[in-house]
Amino acid sequence: MERVMILDTTLRDGTQGEGISLTVADKLRIAKKLDELGIAYIEGGFPGANPKDQEFFESAKKKLHLKHAKLTAFGSTRRPGVAAETDEGLRVLLDSQAPVVTLVGKAWDFHVREALRVTLEENLQMISDSVAYLKRQGREVIFDAEHFFDGYRHNPDYALATLTAAADAGVDWVTLCDTNGGTLPHQISEIVRVVVATLSVPVGIHTHNDCELAVANSLTAVRNGVTMVHGTINGIGERCGNANLASVIPNLELKLEKRCLPSSDHLVHLTEIARFIGEIANLVPHSYQPFVGHSAFAHKGGIHVSAISRNPETYEHIRPELVGNTRRILVSELSGVSNLQHRAEEFGVDVRDRKEEMRQLLGEIKELEYQGYQFEGAEASQELLFLKRFGQYESFFDVAAMRVEATMLDDDAMHSEAIVKLLVGGQSVHTVAEGNGPVNALDSALRKALTPFYPIIETMHLTDYKVRVLDEKDATAAKVRVLIESTNGFDVWRTIGVSENVIEASWEALVDSVMYFLLRVVRKDGAAEVS
Amino acid sequence: MERVMILDTTLRDGTQGEGISLTVADKLRIAKKLDELGIAYIEGGFPGANPKDQEFFESAKKKLHLKHAKLTAFGSTRRPGVAAETDEGLRVLLDSQAPVVTLVGKAWDFHVREALRVTLEENLQMISDSVAYLKRQGREVIFDAEHFFDGYRHNPDYALATLTAAADAGVDWVTLCDTNGGTLPHQISEIVRVVVATLSVPVGIHTHNDCELAVANSLTAVRNGVTMVHGTINGIGERCGNANLASVIPNLELKLEKRCLPSSDHLVHLTEIARFIGEIANLVPHSYQPFVGHSAFAHKGGIHVSAISRNPETYEHIRPELVGNTRRILVSELSGVSNLQHRAEEFGVDVRDRKEEMRQLLGEIKELEYQGYQFEGAEASQELLFLKRFGQYESFFDVAAMRVEATMLDDDAMHSEAIVKLLVGGQSVHTVAEGNGPVNALDSALRKALTPFYPIIETMHLTDYKVRVLDEKDATAAKVRVLIESTNGFDVWRTIGVSENVIEASWEALVDSVMYFLLRVVRKDGAAEVS
Repeated sequence: MERVMILDTTLRDGTQGEGISLTVADKLRIAKKLDELGIAYIEGGFPGANPKDQEFFESAKKKLHLKHAKLTAFGSTRRPGVAAETDEGLRVLLDSQAPVVTLVGKAWDFHVREALRVTLEENLQMISDSVAYLKRQGREVIFDAEHFFDGYRHNPDYALATLTAAADAGVDWVTLCDTNGGTLPHQISEIVRVVVATLSVPVGIHTHNDCELAVANSLTAVRNGVTMVHGTINGIGERCGNANLASVIPNLELKLEKRCLPSSDHLVHLTEIARFIGEIANLVPHSYQPFVGHSAFAHKGGIHVSAISRNPETYEHIRPELVGNTRRILVSELSGVSNLQHRAEEFGVDVRDRKEEMRQLLGEIKELEYQGYQFEGAEASQELLFLKRFGQYESFFDVAAMRVEATMLDDDAMHSEAIVKLLVGGQSVHTVAEGNGPVNALDSALRKALTPFYPIIETMHLTDYKVRVLDEKDATAAKVRVLIESTNGFDVWRTIGVSENVIEASWEALVDSVMYFLLRVVRKDGAAEVS
Repeated sequence: MERVMILDTTLRDGTQGEGISLTVADKLRIAKKLDELGIAYIEGGFPGANPKDQEFFESAKKKLHLKHAKLTAFGSTRRPGVAAETDEGLRVLLDSQAPVVTLVGKAWDFHVREALRVTLEENLQMISDSVAYLKRQGREVIFDAEHFFDGYRHNPDYALATLTAAADAGVDWVTLCDTNGGTLPHQISEIVRVVVATLSVPVGIHTHNDCELAVANSLTAVRNGVTMVHGTINGIGERCGNANLASVIPNLELKLEKRCLPSSDHLVHLTEIARFIGEIANLVPHSYQPFVGHSAFAHKGGIHVSAISRNPETYEHIRPELVGNTRRILVSELSGVSNLQHRAEEFGVDVRDRKEEMRQLLGEIKELEYQGYQFEGAEASQELLFLKRFGQYESFFDVAAMRVEATMLDDDAMHSEAIVKLLVGGQSVHTVAEGNGPVNALDSALRKALTPFYPIIETMHLTDYKVRVLDEKDATAAKVRVLIESTNGFDVWRTIGVSENVIEASWEALVDSVMYFLLRVVRKDGAAEVS
């Protein structure tokens, strides 16, 4: 298998993404993970442009022990009219002590004149001097030709001349950058072919996703002779982001049969590492993300599901395990009895010879979904439905009454209070509690009522609460759907409630959450009995 | 310009996406918007598979008056061993009265044997019979060849034979489906070229995004002779989704110079419509989304800003206005003030020589946005802020107290009641009202209190109510953002509230809505005075 080198610029170009801000500690953690995945080059930052990146390289010297990757510092060619040896930016790059330097320079004549305001000849000299100087200092040097494809379309000779200037000065790699992200795959392949045929040094590609083509452009470039791909994990970066390495890497390894990680054992860490980096960057998880997303191997359609259980290859382009992801079967109004059977097995409910009940349950689920329930995000509520229908449900408490009050008096502050009346083990329990808001108050009152009977409830808590209004045209009289996520530190479960009344919907999801905890989570370890 | 037809399957394949669940009303609203954009075919659903889709086609007959699009119903070829005339699925398709039918059939010999469990010959007959029957009934018929590319790789002759069976039976289009989303662009182009050269009917493409290549695969297919592209707005769909039409369409129109919307005037609605559909599907807005995302044309400050204003083309692959998006420049505090000046002019507030107040207002807005307010979707609340800061605000009523109760007693039904105490024109007004839920009750009590003083309030009502939980990790103690949309039949305005308490946030947005109505909407026509 041919080798393709991966340069990850999550820590540099990735941080240009709107809303992305990484601390030095974050950057160190991400770099370790990228190394674990087996990335060849980790571009750690632009030390000349901001002090945080200088600090990162400083810390990296002491704390970052890379096994596979070479740490790379990013900077510009020397300023006009200055010797490379005395250029401040180049000095900072050398000071970073990164063994590799990515040097960005202009390849579009228009930008040389308009932005740099120097002659075309001086720009070539800036590239040549800077590369030669860094090489003399023992660095591996990658030349990033900014706006290369736009430049090539306007003045191909000059764009090529910038690459030749770098090559003649001893550069190790040149990278063709589609800085504006506007180039299409057929244009990429035409131009890459010319460059690879012209140059004697290896060529890389750096694409942006403004046309949703960054991954395709990277693959096309590789098919036309490029041997280094730049990108970021999850595709974060300025505007629409960079080429998403979480898609580029499996495509190269599994589809184009290129080796870009040290061995075939590394790819299985992809999903975990992509999600880890997403968490650190505080991105909303992109559930539909190819290869690594939570939904990437989730099957919802009924026809698909019956075929999948017989032969997974028929509806999956790769086995999810190859990238460390998992197959998921979803139950919804679009699904058939075979989806339910599959779920029942997962829930440990024996449904053999109970076809009629299965059909009734499917009808019930479809009816509930029609009303606005959505069980694919609320597996615990769904499991309770199964248990009820198949006689395996047991109620740990009954709700006799519930009341919530939200009051604003002269002090302009809101006060929320909830009262619940339950029947627990034959006893009537009546509690009241306050909260930040009405739902928080309800949660507190419910726990107050149940804790004396089931002290284990103190080990569970809610971790997520989502509200969506269905049928928004009806405005404040419309139905809402509430999703609640809970955990005891080990297990995580999700429940749902739907009502025209946000309090009722929240209450329904709350009660399901506690019931599920007592019935299923606790039971796994030992019985939850009235104490 | 050559024509490429767009088939949007947001309402069918899009609803296979995890977490996507659309009501019939949602589907009708989306269909209207797609028609407004100028989509040629709107695939409305799979009426044979679920009752909601049947209801959609039923409602569409009465309520959906399409200007550009043809409504399309999706279904399967007839079952094995049954005459097309007596097949239940085909009957439901005809009953839908959709003028166009998309008929999915097997193109991979393996699936014919494994999933359908019929002979290869019978599958061809099923395709042929079903197409011929629907054509005799006067429908336009599109044949979706499922798993076409996988099928072609395993048995090219048979895959082509399924297309020929459809063509010979009089089909209008055949669609090559990359059902598993595993095919790469170079494979797509090779196979499409063969198909287009072989067949006499026009060919379409239907791709999935499992390799992050759905858009590239669609464009490649068009460059090789395909004249219909299937996809969904924002790329929603099963697993990793379908080809994202919000990227396919501008790429085709602006980059490949194909005409896929009725005229060049339609593309400017793309951003608005993509965001509208995202809202209805309750997707978390994908800020980095190409073409239509909030960050798609966001530029950093510094040197770039002045260069951008001199010559935007050099830093943007297209002008954002072409797709109805806007350029955003990361604002320094100074340019922030100039942005506000622009807003002030729109609001008709004179801010000349009031630099200090402008600076204070900017600080206030930044602080509120930090807390979770988002004025882009709540211009009316923002306008009220301006009016307050510049002394042009007038309060039509003051809130003295407010209380909401939601109660569930033995009957298991929820009762909601709200009490408000206002000061109106020096008078204290105390009202109570019931509602479907607590917010609805509040709305009623507020109107009851104000109507005697401002009868014109009867002419306004709320049209939308949205809740989003911010910082979801804090669960029921987290902050929520409420957005309310109101109208008097002519004007539409939106207001916002943010609080840890959903009742308080709703109340804030409600009060702003009524205040804005009295202060700005009514004042345009005639004074709203205490009567």
